[in-house]
Amino acid sequence: MSTQFNTYWEDFKTGERDNIGSVVVDKHEVIQFASRYDPQPFHVDEAAAERSIYGGLIASGWHTCAMVMRLMCDSYLLDSASLGSPGIENVRWLRPVRPGDTLTAYRTIEETRVSASRPDRGIVRSLWEVENQKDELVLTMSGIQFFLRRNPET
Amino acid sequence: MSTQFNTYWEDFKTGERDNIGSVVVDKHEVIQFASRYDPQPFHVDEAAAERSIYGGLIASGWHTCAMVMRLMCDSYLLDSASLGSPGIENVRWLRPVRPGDTLTAYRTIEETRVSASRPDRGIVRSLWEVENQKDELVLTMSGIQFFLRRNPET
Repeated sequence: MSTQFNTYWEDFKTGERDNIGSVVVDKHEVIQFASRYDPQPFHVDEAAAERSIYGGLIASGWHTCAMVMRLMCDSYLLDSASLGSPGIENVRWLRPVRPGDTLTAYRTIEETRVSASRPDRGIVRSLWEVENQKDELVLTMSGIQFFLRRNPET
Repeated sequence: MSTQFNTYWEDFKTGERDNIGSVVVDKHEVIQFASRYDPQPFHVDEAAAERSIYGGLIASGWHTCAMVMRLMCDSYLLDSASLGSPGIENVRWLRPVRPGDTLTAYRTIEETRVSASRPDRGIVRSLWEVENQKDELVLTMSGIQFFLRRNPET
């Protein structure tokens, strides 16, 4: 039985829903991220953002995804036997994310199974739902992550 | 006929495939991005990455998506009547992206149609394919973007 990490494939249970943490959206960081990766006016220019359909500065959708990735890392990935992810489905930017918002992410385990080709590891499919401080959904996405099994011999 | 921007909904033609630009992956930036958003050892720690299943430092998948977003911005979005995107489908991180790699992105227009509810705008569905300098696919994803029409009265 391996105990190098806190979390292995066996620790994910289908149907479980957990709060994986919160982050406050920082205006300087919104502008900094978008200036490098997504310099559309409503992400980088406060005056232009005021005049846009969004009525003010909003975070790049990719920045929101990245902030949620950090919550995943801190809540379970960094102390896990993670082997990475092949991809993500159904990324939905449902509402604008604004500086000062507090985002809280919830993870629901949708499916777990042992890899057919590599029985030392398992597959975990999760749904991530991200709400702001008004309990409004701002982002949903789902995806697969691979983890080593704690007890591959069982 | 509006000419405020270079690109409106009418300028996207189903079936067209275009090179939307290239970017060289910078090691310092790989570590910087991942340190903030995805601090898994194989993204931030060269020695740990050497010992990992990846055999060396690799970019966060979200960083790769963000780099492609910048190519979209520079090649067409910033001088367009873009109204943003509701989401992305089928993000596939197919191969590791490493410092020093040159990534080139291709966009194929899969579908265009006028919005049924808001006839001043149109919907463009695209597939993005990203290759490295060995012509290996490293990332694919698809998604919808909204654009104002140049001639909404037609």
